[in-house]
Amino acid sequence: MNSKEQRMAEGILYTDQYQLTMAQLYYRMGLHERVAQFDHFFRSYPDYGEHKAGYCVNAGLEWLFDWIDQAHFRKDDIESLRIQRDSAGNQIFADDFLEWLHNEASFNRLSIQAIPEGRVVHPNVPLTVVHGPLAIAQILETSLLNHLNYQTLIATKASRIHNAGRGNLLLEFGLRRAPETGANAGGARAALIGGADFTSNVGISHVLGFPAKGTHAHSMVQVFIALGGSELDAFQAYADVYPDDCLLLVDTVNTLESGIPNAIKVFEVLRRKGHKPVGIRLDSGDLAYLSIHAAKMLNDAGFPDTSIVLSNQLDELVIWQILAQIEHEAPRYGVDPDELANRLIYGVGTNLITSSGDPALDGVYKLVAVQQNNNWVPAIKVSENPIKIPNPGHKHVWRVYDERGIATADLLSMEDENFQEHDEIILHHPYEHQSFRVLNKETISEIEPLLVDIMIDGEILYDWPTIDEMREARKNDLERLDTGVKRIINPHIYHVSLSEKLWNLKQKLLMNL
Amino acid sequence: MNSKEQRMAEGILYTDQYQLTMAQLYYRMGLHERVAQFDHFFRSYPDYGEHKAGYCVNAGLEWLFDWIDQAHFRKDDIESLRIQRDSAGNQIFADDFLEWLHNEASFNRLSIQAIPEGRVVHPNVPLTVVHGPLAIAQILETSLLNHLNYQTLIATKASRIHNAGRGNLLLEFGLRRAPETGANAGGARAALIGGADFTSNVGISHVLGFPAKGTHAHSMVQVFIALGGSELDAFQAYADVYPDDCLLLVDTVNTLESGIPNAIKVFEVLRRKGHKPVGIRLDSGDLAYLSIHAAKMLNDAGFPDTSIVLSNQLDELVIWQILAQIEHEAPRYGVDPDELANRLIYGVGTNLITSSGDPALDGVYKLVAVQQNNNWVPAIKVSENPIKIPNPGHKHVWRVYDERGIATADLLSMEDENFQEHDEIILHHPYEHQSFRVLNKETISEIEPLLVDIMIDGEILYDWPTIDEMREARKNDLERLDTGVKRIINPHIYHVSLSEKLWNLKQKLLMNL
Repeated sequence: MNSKEQRMAEGILYTDQYQLTMAQLYYRMGLHERVAQFDHFFRSYPDYGEHKAGYCVNAGLEWLFDWIDQAHFRKDDIESLRIQRDSAGNQIFADDFLEWLHNEASFNRLSIQAIPEGRVVHPNVPLTVVHGPLAIAQILETSLLNHLNYQTLIATKASRIHNAGRGNLLLEFGLRRAPETGANAGGARAALIGGADFTSNVGISHVLGFPAKGTHAHSMVQVFIALGGSELDAFQAYADVYPDDCLLLVDTVNTLESGIPNAIKVFEVLRRKGHKPVGIRLDSGDLAYLSIHAAKMLNDAGFPDTSIVLSNQLDELVIWQILAQIEHEAPRYGVDPDELANRLIYGVGTNLITSSGDPALDGVYKLVAVQQNNNWVPAIKVSENPIKIPNPGHKHVWRVYDERGIATADLLSMEDENFQEHDEIILHHPYEHQSFRVLNKETISEIEPLLVDIMIDGEILYDWPTIDEMREARKNDLERLDTGVKRIINPHIYHVSLSEKLWNLKQKLLMNL
Repeated sequence: MNSKEQRMAEGILYTDQYQLTMAQLYYRMGLHERVAQFDHFFRSYPDYGEHKAGYCVNAGLEWLFDWIDQAHFRKDDIESLRIQRDSAGNQIFADDFLEWLHNEASFNRLSIQAIPEGRVVHPNVPLTVVHGPLAIAQILETSLLNHLNYQTLIATKASRIHNAGRGNLLLEFGLRRAPETGANAGGARAALIGGADFTSNVGISHVLGFPAKGTHAHSMVQVFIALGGSELDAFQAYADVYPDDCLLLVDTVNTLESGIPNAIKVFEVLRRKGHKPVGIRLDSGDLAYLSIHAAKMLNDAGFPDTSIVLSNQLDELVIWQILAQIEHEAPRYGVDPDELANRLIYGVGTNLITSSGDPALDGVYKLVAVQQNNNWVPAIKVSENPIKIPNPGHKHVWRVYDERGIATADLLSMEDENFQEHDEIILHHPYEHQSFRVLNKETISEIEPLLVDIMIDGEILYDWPTIDEMREARKNDLERLDTGVKRIINPHIYHVSLSEKLWNLKQKLLMNL
């Protein structure tokens, strides 16, 4: 694509065709300016097969708004729609509708609330709430889902991997396996929000204000060997050029017999010159076994503070297994397992950037209410699957914390409900009739509203947090999340509940349909 | 990101940090201008868990070259590198190296061969071969892999889904679950190359010259119901606005009791007015069962030519199972299973655009040779896993067709080998010593070289094929591929072999290391 084509592909026509055919239908029926509300939420946590998430980390919002800010129906976009033809050869989009698109269909006419990036979030809770003219809010759907689904998916995976690695340094290495240009930038950003400390991606690191991380590949050692030199020559050259950032990849020839001994030789030279070697990277073989032996060799040589970077198809389960194996095996070789665990750094590529095991978040954007005579009329889709029945109407989202300060449920309520007035709160299961909980006021330490105003009538009212602030939000939320919910395998299910009033409304709508 | 940030993130710094640290090391050692060759290949077919690919469809090349054409070290890029600091606070990239990057490190200095897009390709076969100054070829790695891995992955998945659907119309619907902006455009393009007929993505359809496809969502029906109308009102409104493109989504309320009967009422009105209704879409429930009953109802109402579009979490296995169920069950209801199968259209979203089951292709870019004194010196990485040992040196790639005209093997040979001169060809297994085949000349109908020159010293020598031409290439290759290799589950393994001379070289290098 040239840059003109890229503007066409990534501008306001970065949407599905049916958003535009529906918009024209609304226009034709006089419904296009009718005020409507759409909720964005996901239906289930990522399920990676052998394991499953118990929470997600919200991400993608600021970049969605960067897109919203730039996306408008340019003359080129309108003309590309004007030439579309139906089966009979007639213009699909009529001139009067295209005129309206060009002149009136601006995202500036929308108001949007959202849960901030970095917050821990759960299924069926509105994460983003869009108000505005029906046709305009409808057109936003595709791009909104595209921007938010992927970043939330990756931030969630990063958080899991970060937790599996006990909070040790986590590097995002996924660029070469990531799905094309825009994706990796967004994926790297989401990884940084969710749990990665740095990324190898140079451009996006600079844009986001982080140092990019990386040292060398096997090819560097191969070049020296092909030209008649040795692995040691390659390492020595690296140390000469980067004496204060010397981290050596030790598995090009043979990790234990060549790579680590050569690295130690080079580290000794560095030490004599007053530099502090950084460490080694292991990228193949049994990473648990090799890291134990690497640690022993580095300790014996007087380098107990050097890092050991692990890479090669890592994910949260692999890291967890490596640490379990180290716990069990390291003492046999005279290596302290906790000391070893503390010096590990994880470089995670493919499995992080693709959310391997579940490469898509099932986020949806559903019409929940339309205004009629200044009242909100709830909209509902009846489906055979009760989980898929959206919660109707204009809602509030609350997080309820128990007496320990731990989040015990997310509660969806009607807009006019005030929980300060009640002595107890009834939490209904979203679709199982007999399942509800009653919470006494004494057992509740806090009821926190989760949605914040981002944009009112096109004006951004929100100060975008820095990525460090999003990370703080994530850490705070994870500290207030039950340990069982954070479990990597078979997590405890967090409660997302409906208020009595919302539950009754939903039943009434289902009865009447 | 604003547009300046986007240029930074998607330009030449769309790479991994270690490409630049290695480039500086080569510069410092005087090796940066040394001519080198890198091969791009993938190691294994996508493995989706319960099923596995037996071939891949090559894609992504033209967009890689669009990127190469635009990517250069701008002043902004150089300055962003100049401010990088090492652990001791010193500049990581020295001024002389940055000067060289800015003035000399241009992709115009590379020559690139590749297998064209749309061709069927196999593991360990060089798909892209890059020659040129070591440091410059090294810097290209990340972006090359990023552009080619993802599109090849998606083209492959599209081909499988297309084949499972017996070549019926296939629509790509994945934008909302795709990984961000650039990705979906590339994913949609790859899907169109690999087997999708159209995509719902409006912008990229226009850019690539295809009509975008889509009709309406559940929300349209919900709007009418919320405002006091009915599903029938919604369908009638749709038919009024799109009389020649009337395809109705029938599962918002109840597919068999409401959706299809209402669609038929509207189709009857259209017929009376002289229009031909297009069909219905089923998006939930048991799609096999519902499509049989939908077919029966449409047939009974005199609409046997209307299409039935299936969507909702489809992939190649689901489609295969639906068709098997139809084969078995349709006759019971007086529906001809083949007629029904022929009127089905598949709308595939998430599972296509993410290559669900295996969301990354393991494509790599490996140094295979370096020039010294005008000779190529092969480079090799010794790894514990024999599959991971790259094939050394400067090579040719041939496809060998048997007497039936069916591809029997891809053969890698040394550059100076000419198979016209031999009476027989020995095909060696790439790493198993005793496994080889001898082919007599009489059993070979054709030996086709697969690599073509794309760029020589920065000049593009290649006429980019249209997507239709790439589809032709794919269809031709699939016709000449053994049926067993195309099997969806447990495919027969296609042979990728080494010539006797290349096999001997590889053994010699491994011995000497």
